[in-house]
Amino acid sequence: MIMTTSSYREIGGGVTAAKGFVANAISCGIKKPTATRLDLALIYSSEPTVSAGAFTTNRVRAACVRVSQSHLRRGNVRAIIANSGNANACTGAAGVAVARKECSLVAQALGLKASEVAVCSTGVIGLPMPMVRIEPRLPELCRNLSADKGHDVASAIITSDTCEKEIAVEINIGGKPVRIGSCCKGAGMISPCMATMICLICTDAAISRQDLDAVVHEGVSLSFNRITIDGDMSTNDTCLVLANGASGVQLAPGLPGWESFVAALRHVMMVQAMHIVQDGERVTKFVTVRVEGAPTPAEAKRVAEGVAKSSLVKSSWNGGDPNWGRIAHAVGYSGTRIKEELLDIDIAGLPACRGGLQTDTPSDDLRARVQAREFEVRINLNMGAESYEVYTTDLSPEYVDFNRSEYAYWNQAKQDGLTH
Amino acid sequence: MIMTTSSYREIGGGVTAAKGFVANAISCGIKKPTATRLDLALIYSSEPTVSAGAFTTNRVRAACVRVSQSHLRRGNVRAIIANSGNANACTGAAGVAVARKECSLVAQALGLKASEVAVCSTGVIGLPMPMVRIEPRLPELCRNLSADKGHDVASAIITSDTCEKEIAVEINIGGKPVRIGSCCKGAGMISPCMATMICLICTDAAISRQDLDAVVHEGVSLSFNRITIDGDMSTNDTCLVLANGASGVQLAPGLPGWESFVAALRHVMMVQAMHIVQDGERVTKFVTVRVEGAPTPAEAKRVAEGVAKSSLVKSSWNGGDPNWGRIAHAVGYSGTRIKEELLDIDIAGLPACRGGLQTDTPSDDLRARVQAREFEVRINLNMGAESYEVYTTDLSPEYVDFNRSEYAYWNQAKQDGLTH
Repeated sequence: MIMTTSSYREIGGGVTAAKGFVANAISCGIKKPTATRLDLALIYSSEPTVSAGAFTTNRVRAACVRVSQSHLRRGNVRAIIANSGNANACTGAAGVAVARKECSLVAQALGLKASEVAVCSTGVIGLPMPMVRIEPRLPELCRNLSADKGHDVASAIITSDTCEKEIAVEINIGGKPVRIGSCCKGAGMISPCMATMICLICTDAAISRQDLDAVVHEGVSLSFNRITIDGDMSTNDTCLVLANGASGVQLAPGLPGWESFVAALRHVMMVQAMHIVQDGERVTKFVTVRVEGAPTPAEAKRVAEGVAKSSLVKSSWNGGDPNWGRIAHAVGYSGTRIKEELLDIDIAGLPACRGGLQTDTPSDDLRARVQAREFEVRINLNMGAESYEVYTTDLSPEYVDFNRSEYAYWNQAKQDGLTH
Repeated sequence: MIMTTSSYREIGGGVTAAKGFVANAISCGIKKPTATRLDLALIYSSEPTVSAGAFTTNRVRAACVRVSQSHLRRGNVRAIIANSGNANACTGAAGVAVARKECSLVAQALGLKASEVAVCSTGVIGLPMPMVRIEPRLPELCRNLSADKGHDVASAIITSDTCEKEIAVEINIGGKPVRIGSCCKGAGMISPCMATMICLICTDAAISRQDLDAVVHEGVSLSFNRITIDGDMSTNDTCLVLANGASGVQLAPGLPGWESFVAALRHVMMVQAMHIVQDGERVTKFVTVRVEGAPTPAEAKRVAEGVAKSSLVKSSWNGGDPNWGRIAHAVGYSGTRIKEELLDIDIAGLPACRGGLQTDTPSDDLRARVQAREFEVRINLNMGAESYEVYTTDLSPEYVDFNRSEYAYWNQAKQDGLTH
């Protein structure tokens, strides 16, 4: 699942681990007016950058997503301002104006063009961004930047995550270190209507925009686009990658170290994707759904996602129940060509179904394996050579309970004046 | 939602309310070897019939579905044998052989061809049908048929349903009564892996096969195909309609009473569909999701189903939370052309979102309306003239809890010898 043939290694640190990146984070009362939790962060590269991004495909896109996409289309991004507590989604033209203003104020303070700043928001949907709380604090945010504050950024972007999600790796290329650092937040259109994943990645590699775009999109398709917690695609999903060349190592296909760099960046993305799934709302299981033997890649994907999104299948995993019948029924309705009599299902390494029929694997053996926190469901359609993997979770009564009660928070936020 | 312009009226009774239909139901230990719950039923028309059916489109189809489909292709069905406790799904060639044998034994006892018998099963997936318990009881089942036993059939087909689901209507056509009777069972790939809806409808109307097919498929598309509880399509869904002409009233497009008959049959299907949703597993809300202003009917459907299947939206309904932001996000990821700035959402008759933005409807007013057991969510895309309605439920912590613990039941069923 994670390629580790290359010469990278994990090191300490997070999003500012690579050379030339500094950051700051402050608490300005977006999450809660009275609280002291960090909720506004800035990352800045002292060197010019090349940058790439991947965004939600939801047709309801947050204002920050629209603005960041437009800035990336116009060139490269050298700073990122990110907040939690308000998603700036379903906020219309006013929301876009706020996101633009955030970028221009940051740009002004840092001597950049507004289009060199990207903006990320995560939090409540449908309430106006409390610009009145953000604007007076921007000079302070932009002034005290330091390479030591990567962890503060990781703290400032999380919402209902139970922990910060960071990783940094180093690749040795011809004796020179190249670093990639990252922080991210999850996971599962998070309550109260938090919306949702942000992953920020900074590297000191020197790389062309075209090559970075290619490797980022490939990496996202192998990691963040393969995870599902509740099947609900957010309005705000954003992955941004900045490369500033400060390592002095030029990377491109064919040059030394390229393969290692690609593997290292994929590793960072995959680890962050796993962090998000493992810290999903009230989840108790991490399940890899692997589909093999599909006639086409699209069909492999459809079956894997169908199984990974089935409420019934996910409920059974929550109960530690090796319910292959439910998996078979989800395979059947996934809209893919399958032949029931060819269907094989392995659960946690044991054959549960062969040729569409129950095996003689003792139920208690299957059940014992499914008690584990992590296991794999392997489905072979025996209809072709294509495969696909999805990383997912169980569905718990606690997830539903957690997500049924946003109103109080939302109404409080309104009354607290977070809407101004 | 239900057309009531026609001259039909609900009467007492169920599936044997129409002239010429008799039935029987017995307890033969499929649900539980020791229990006395009815679990095997037979319906028989003393007159030749015309018949139509609609079945699951799941690629994993139960053996009973395959056999019934093949019998309907060969002609008309005059008797239906139905059991609960075992779905005869994922049972391979042996399962098909059992379903065929049930039909031939019933046919023999009643003097029919085997292809004149349909078979329905609902219950555990993946365990062999306990033919050893069924076969010795078939003579008794076929012997004691009576028009009084419609309610027993309704009891014999339910699984985790909390009540029998019956309806009968009478249409007066030129002074002559035409009746339609029905029983059905739900709902939500029912635990333990129960699978799932069966609806049996018997009428004494005289009608051609072609006309019955058309009206049944139209009716199913307006009712059973518009309900979703957990988004999990079963392997066994079956709706069978038998018409025996015993009323002496010939019905066809253009003849007197045709419109009333069509309306009455639709009413029966719609009421049964509502019964299934309202008795869904651990549900507390009945929600109509109506999408208007879509560019095409397919897009209206996709948006409605996207919203009705979103775990996050359904969780918020469970909490009585009028969360329009989550509805907007589900509209956005439904894969349909939408313009966020045109999106209107009404919840329970109050405007919650206009042009993609929050309205000034007080949150407490919205919340008060969503406390009701039934309400409508009306989404206008303002992109065209097409509309679609889906009938659905909330998602409760109790649903997940109910569905996480099948293993004990399943293993017990295996040990009880239900597999032989």
